[in-house]
Amino acid sequence: MVKIVGIAGSLRPDSYSQYALQAAAERVRALGAEVEILDLRQLNLPFCDGSDEYPDYPDVKRMRQSVLQADGVILVTPEYHGSLSGVLKNALDLMGFEHFSGKVTGLMSVLGGQSNSNALNDMRTILRWIHAWTIPEQVAIGQAWKAFDQDGNLQDENLLKRIDAFAQSLVENTQKLRGVALQAAAVV
Amino acid sequence: MVKIVGIAGSLRPDSYSQYALQAAAERVRALGAEVEILDLRQLNLPFCDGSDEYPDYPDVKRMRQSVLQADGVILVTPEYHGSLSGVLKNALDLMGFEHFSGKVTGLMSVLGGQSNSNALNDMRTILRWIHAWTIPEQVAIGQAWKAFDQDGNLQDENLLKRIDAFAQSLVENTQKLRGVALQAAAVV
Amino acid sequence: MVKIVGIAGSLRPDSYSQYALQAAAERVRALGAEVEILDLRQLNLPFCDGSDEYPDYPDVKRMRQSVLQADGVILVTPEYHGSLSGVLKNALDLMGFEHFSGKVTGLMSVLGGQSNSNALNDMRTILRWIHAWTIPEQVAIGQAWKAFDQDGNLQDENLLKRIDAFAQSLVENTQKLRGVALQAAAVV
Amino acid sequence: MVKIVGIAGSLRPDSYSQYALQAAAERVRALGAEVEILDLRQLNLPFCDGSDEYPDYPDVKRMRQSVLQADGVILVTPEYHGSLSGVLKNALDLMGFEHFSGKVTGLMSVLGGQSNSNALNDMRTILRWIHAWTIPEQVAIGQAWKAFDQDGNLQDENLLKRIDAFAQSLVENTQKLRGVALQAAAVV
Repeated sequence: MVKIVGIAGSLRPDSYSQYALQAAAERVRALGAEVEILDLRQLNLPFCDGSDEYPDYPDVKRMRQSVLQADGVILVTPEYHGSLSGVLKNALDLMGFEHFSGKVTGLMSVLGGQSNSNALNDMRTILRWIHAWTIPEQVAIGQAWKAFDQDGNLQDENLLKRIDAFAQSLVENTQKLRGVALQAAAVV
Repeated sequence: MVKIVGIAGSLRPDSYSQYALQAAAERVRALGAEVEILDLRQLNLPFCDGSDEYPDYPDVKRMRQSVLQADGVILVTPEYHGSLSGVLKNALDLMGFEHFSGKVTGLMSVLGGQSNSNALNDMRTILRWIHAWTIPEQVAIGQAWKAFDQDGNLQDENLLKRIDAFAQSLVENTQKLRGVALQAAAVV
Repeated sequence: MVKIVGIAGSLRPDSYSQYALQAAAERVRALGAEVEILDLRQLNLPFCDGSDEYPDYPDVKRMRQSVLQADGVILVTPEYHGSLSGVLKNALDLMGFEHFSGKVTGLMSVLGGQSNSNALNDMRTILRWIHAWTIPEQVAIGQAWKAFDQDGNLQDENLLKRIDAFAQSLVENTQKLRGVALQAAAVV
Repeated sequence: MVKIVGIAGSLRPDSYSQYALQAAAERVRALGAEVEILDLRQLNLPFCDGSDEYPDYPDVKRMRQSVLQADGVILVTPEYHGSLSGVLKNALDLMGFEHFSGKVTGLMSVLGGQSNSNALNDMRTILRWIHAWTIPEQVAIGQAWKAFDQDGNLQDENLLKRIDAFAQSLVENTQKLRGVALQAAAVV
């Protein structure tokens, strides 16, 4: 059974990145994969200081365990200063090769201004560094303030189609690369 | 008078990045510039959640004030997963255009394995995004465990020369681009 | 006297990159700098095969000579496949450190689709590699087919302002970094 | 049957990039895949001028046809000025989405100086742009002049192991992602 973990790199209460992750997670679930969202606003994580273990922060172990058991990971970042957020990079710094190697990842970014792919490019390089696959499909959501409605629902038809294709590719190619099946209900 | 702020993106007690920053700071001081080191291990900074102000964390204001008043900034990062550390990116996320625009920056990275310029490339793009200059000279210190001695002194002659050229360029070009003078003592 | 060379990396007869270069060159000239356009459609350049000299291609020497004598360089590229054109990269490959070191460069890109900064990011890294400065101001012209009129004049007011700021920064900072003056007429 | 095309972006007569491509091609063949080398020194290709067709250059069609029919592509570039060669980028500019979409690529670079991954990073972004997969394994060959012997054989044991792992991953994952089988002889 394909298991996907989703992490969004924004701590804002009404974060568009978290909304975008929800939208992608729904589609991935509808395709028959299991999805677990690790909400960094709920986890108590330390700044990475290069230690192997963080006994005072049990959420480090929890996050690592979830990613370790996953076949794939969705990462969504707000684009801050032309790159991924420090919050998301720090979460990745708390993990490594042993958690990501051979996993299949899908990348999304959310911007206040015009769409751009700086953060997506940087994330792709970072994930290669820890030996993960990244699907060619990626989604950058520009001018997020008008892409979502008040309840956090994505309004833009074109973006919704891109997220559909993104979810489809992530699930299909995770099956292919990892040799895992979907949930029975979804296969039917 | 040229004022330079130095920030290293590692929280390790015996961090090579902090040692490298010290080495660069000494040379910059010897050239007549004032240098202030902001040691992220001493500052109490929050994760950036997109807020403008962080009243519970006075060190945010302190860091911003120092960078605001500086003409130039030295940034040193450990290369984690082929990019800058989340710790350093988060510190940058807590600042922005208003603190960095028009400032002159110099970049260094420290790696456990072979030298590489991934983190330096990412930082250069990030700093452009907040409208800072970055000098062409940059220093990547590979296999840091053998580049420094037990007391944190850089041993490698070639790297020491690169840091000399780095400091020279940073001070000279900050003067040119910012129209500021050096301390009297140094000018003599 | 500030001397700027302009090179656009497109060979299309009605290239938007060449039009964009013209627009920037006009403004730079109006600020009192001398501008020479090296039109790659007029030059007969070989593919770089790693040789030092290309005796059968006198335009290699001509291009190198012009860049060698310049204080600054404007580079404009069409964004092909998320990076600069092979045509422009090949022209840069025919030159090197000795032509670009210490020069001040300004970067623009032209895209058929949405604006993006992939090509600009790659160029910035490449120019650092050959030890050139790149100004923080950069211009990406998205959906070029509607940004220009039939005669190749840029229509978009916002982009025109960005090109003004780009030209201003290039000329001012070339003066500062290179210690060169403008033409008398312009200074008055 | 897995078909792989190999392209190296150097025109030098004794190009290390071409030698590196040969080394990788041998291992890929030994694993049962068919490999066709497109030697850019033998092909007569024009500079890309944005045209769709190049009737005066039949090798454009030949190259496109080979890549179109391939399941995977090995790209090797000399790292020139911190990026891929203009020669290789131009060859890619002559192709596009229709030739690369869904294909599986593996990337190598060759450097005169210290190993670095600038060119590999840029190629990874470019290939994503034309919707190809790139395997996480990549090989950067630094100080190429001492990595190969006079006959172009790679001497460095560590690099040979990396090329083995690279070839293994390319063949295995091309099978998985493309749903194609190996040659009978190899399967046995």
